[in-house]
Amino acid sequence: MSRLHVPVPLRWADLDAYGHVNNVAVLRLLEEARIAVFWRHPEAVDPGAWPTAVLDAGPGASTHTLVARQEIEYLLPLAYRREPVTVEMWIGRLGGASIEVCYQLVTDLEGERTVYAQAITTLVLLDAASGRPRRLSEAERAVWSPHLAPPLTMRRRRDGG
Amino acid sequence: MSRLHVPVPLRWADLDAYGHVNNVAVLRLLEEARIAVFWRHPEAVDPGAWPTAVLDAGPGASTHTLVARQEIEYLLPLAYRREPVTVEMWIGRLGGASIEVCYQLVTDLEGERTVYAQAITTLVLLDAASGRPRRLSEAERAVWSPHLAPPLTMRRRRDGG
Amino acid sequence: MSRLHVPVPLRWADLDAYGHVNNVAVLRLLEEARIAVFWRHPEAVDPGAWPTAVLDAGPGASTHTLVARQEIEYLLPLAYRREPVTVEMWIGRLGGASIEVCYQLVTDLEGERTVYAQAITTLVLLDAASGRPRRLSEAERAVWSPHLAPPLTMRRRRDGG
Amino acid sequence: MSRLHVPVPLRWADLDAYGHVNNVAVLRLLEEARIAVFWRHPEAVDPGAWPTAVLDAGPGASTHTLVARQEIEYLLPLAYRREPVTVEMWIGRLGGASIEVCYQLVTDLEGERTVYAQAITTLVLLDAASGRPRRLSEAERAVWSPHLAPPLTMRRRRDGG
Repeated sequence: MSRLHVPVPLRWADLDAYGHVNNVAVLRLLEEARIAVFWRHPEAVDPGAWPTAVLDAGPGASTHTLVARQEIEYLLPLAYRREPVTVEMWIGRLGGASIEVCYQLVTDLEGERTVYAQAITTLVLLDAASGRPRRLSEAERAVWSPHLAPPLTMRRRRDGG
Repeated sequence: MSRLHVPVPLRWADLDAYGHVNNVAVLRLLEEARIAVFWRHPEAVDPGAWPTAVLDAGPGASTHTLVARQEIEYLLPLAYRREPVTVEMWIGRLGGASIEVCYQLVTDLEGERTVYAQAITTLVLLDAASGRPRRLSEAERAVWSPHLAPPLTMRRRRDGG
Repeated sequence: MSRLHVPVPLRWADLDAYGHVNNVAVLRLLEEARIAVFWRHPEAVDPGAWPTAVLDAGPGASTHTLVARQEIEYLLPLAYRREPVTVEMWIGRLGGASIEVCYQLVTDLEGERTVYAQAITTLVLLDAASGRPRRLSEAERAVWSPHLAPPLTMRRRRDGG
Repeated sequence: MSRLHVPVPLRWADLDAYGHVNNVAVLRLLEEARIAVFWRHPEAVDPGAWPTAVLDAGPGASTHTLVARQEIEYLLPLAYRREPVTVEMWIGRLGGASIEVCYQLVTDLEGERTVYAQAITTLVLLDAASGRPRRLSEAERAVWSPHLAPPLTMRRRRDGG
């Protein structure tokens, strides 16, 4: 099973005046999962690092990641809960200088899996010095390839849209 | 010209550690424009209300709006600026119980128009009491129809994605 | 030892364009700790609940909590890290209808404790129906009293300020 | 009259699940006003710049500002409104390397002024290269002195707190 399971805690401030996690806040949760999985942090003590975390993090790093595109479907309203939700992540496509990250935001209570949202993000790797796209390295492909799986099929996309 | 032009001020907190407006914060800016345009607020003094603001706002209202789907392309990084950016909005489709809102986030400095991001949001109207979708009223169609225009064509969408 | 230790994960979006956790975001972290400690959530499965969590949470609850006052000192800049920071909390004062919550935001790496910020929040309990302050119950006092300790002494407060 | 009046628009996302502007979001509004008033932005076209905006803005600037302390009192809950609220600002004290900024967040509807929150922020000026405090320049004192006024008297501060 190639999906990565990333626990992401909600925050009270993710709720809006309807009492549900705001639609924009859902993308914040996916961002947190993506950063946990792909980025290596400079602090020495980092026992929780994912094997997939091969990008240097932060403003001083040699690679920047640019979010080029996002697509998200909201399937069920998400209420506040103390336990983290789970972001299931996989890679839908490894391109020349880009990655397509697929996500499903789920809870799994007593064996019942519920999907609240699903999304795709296209990330472009940039050389930080030049600001131009740079190709994925062989090392990056080696680490990420085991997590390749068919991309999400969105339910609500229309041809004209 | 059927596009609505909504000025939206940036906030310092929209920037991330790269010094640009964060990709999630861009969706927050679009949300602000959407709320300005569609929602009528209960306060008596509201000189800035848009003619298109026919939905009652807030948690006590009879209609809730549900964001069912979003798709966004980030075309250029957006730096902090004091002047508001402009969100150009139009309606790409009036469905039975849903609306497709199209946006381009632009600046227009000395006559030069620059597009930083473009997006589509599918909004579903819910009856607040039952939580079920409700049909657009004739009054809503009459107010919104002049802002119908062909939906955005996304540049980066792939068939498999 | 009466201090409660609440782990709070940072988010990438807590950073501002200086690359540090933004000063306002620090108050967001304290809010998360406070909600974890004091609020009981309606979901049935909540293994992580604190014994101090005796307030019903959320908009439908019978008690609302109002933040009446906050005071915070920022002692060191806080960089992004993957591991949660720790919010140490205690109660500086149990009033008639209010509580003073004291916090120190710390990290403890290999036995070295570092304090980044310290703060005091005055919370007022409101009867949700009337919107008026209501007295702390005996049950609340019983649960919270073991966590009473002398309030923080702020370093930088001046008499004129 | 030495108070600066800074209009700050609310955002829908400033509301929390109680339907009021969240207590942390209020500090975000004050931050926006402070940045508008003190920071000069590098973009050429900036017709709205305040005469008081003499600090270079952003991560590449020669001066960084550090928020060292904040104190805030919440006097009334603030509901969403389309019109900006007003942040009244003045300087309570010009120190050697620091400034005390005082604020009242108000609305003024049909001549009736209502105060929702009041706060004090202590800002320290840092030399960006060394990271150490630097003294206020004579130019800064000259620009800011007309806005000196007695600091806020907080209502709820207690000696022990």
